[in-house]
Amino acid sequence: MSRWEPDARRRLERASLELFVERGYDNTTVAEIAERAGLTKRTFFRHFADKREVLFGGQEILRRLFTDAIAGAPSSATPLETIAAALAAVAPIFDRERLELALRRQAIIAAHTDLKERELLKAATLTATMADGFRSRGLSDLAAGVAAELGQLAFRTAFSRWVSADGREFSDVATETLADLKTAAELATAQP
Amino acid sequence: MSRWEPDARRRLERASLELFVERGYDNTTVAEIAERAGLTKRTFFRHFADKREVLFGGQEILRRLFTDAIAGAPSSATPLETIAAALAAVAPIFDRERLELALRRQAIIAAHTDLKERELLKAATLTATMADGFRSRGLSDLAAGVAAELGQLAFRTAFSRWVSADGREFSDVATETLADLKTAAELATAQP
Repeated sequence: MSRWEPDARRRLERASLELFVERGYDNTTVAEIAERAGLTKRTFFRHFADKREVLFGGQEILRRLFTDAIAGAPSSATPLETIAAALAAVAPIFDRERLELALRRQAIIAAHTDLKERELLKAATLTATMADGFRSRGLSDLAAGVAAELGQLAFRTAFSRWVSADGREFSDVATETLADLKTAAELATAQP
Repeated sequence: MSRWEPDARRRLERASLELFVERGYDNTTVAEIAERAGLTKRTFFRHFADKREVLFGGQEILRRLFTDAIAGAPSSATPLETIAAALAAVAPIFDRERLELALRRQAIIAAHTDLKERELLKAATLTATMADGFRSRGLSDLAAGVAAELGQLAFRTAFSRWVSADGREFSDVATETLADLKTAAELATAQP
């Protein structure tokens, strides 16, 4: 990231989402995005491989935060405690400005089947990464798979509640979601 | 399905997968598939919307079997028992011939990012369908979500074990997978 454009990435993201909403995703060019952001195409390509990556580049950041949090949780932490640590690690991303961008991003993705499929691929990659993390913590393949699905579900639920939560902090929504998930997991795995 | 081509669907599927392996998915036309199957293009289009649907048409059949099994399980059945009923309902699909087609199908999908994304979309649809089914059985949104993810994981694991299980019956592999999943779910939701 260039020192003289400290906010370039977010400016490009904001400009992209504005244009995708105004003109449609398919009709927006990288040149138009750079112009709207007051930057050059070259700067755009320093931050994103293409316009689709504006929508999905954040997932790589999420993936790294999740990975580090799962690896860094105390060895005594249960899978659900480890998931709580992972949600705490990503919480700072989800600030007020991110909320607005997230809403636009969702609307654009929902309108394009190929973007929805890409979103699912990224989500599957995130789940697989979490499963790797849980395996490294000593869980069996299948237990790591269950823990990763619970982690993905916790994140997805917390995120969607936060998006429609009218300004509540992500970390509060996440804590509440985890408590609900614990109850839900007990119901879903109930004994006869 | 036409009465005079009782096996047309499977013949078209077999011909497609052969050609996808021999010539590549992208280089295979519907005309070639129909010719290889000894049928007309018109017959092809009575069974499939396009060549991609040859790979994904079976998912709709799966989806319906899962839906009916979840809706039809006794009201006293736990979510895990309901998942067992769903796996039992789809077991007859996975016969010896299906195994061979499934292996070819997997290899073709693995080689194409867009087909992998489509596969994930279909899997997500299946999970959402299962979640609807569990909600109709009285589970909360989140508990239905957990049950559906467990169902998806059970199916995915049973399927991939069956594919590499050297000729074991799907129903046996599924029963074993469900027992392992129960243990895994206990570990993944362990209390501190």
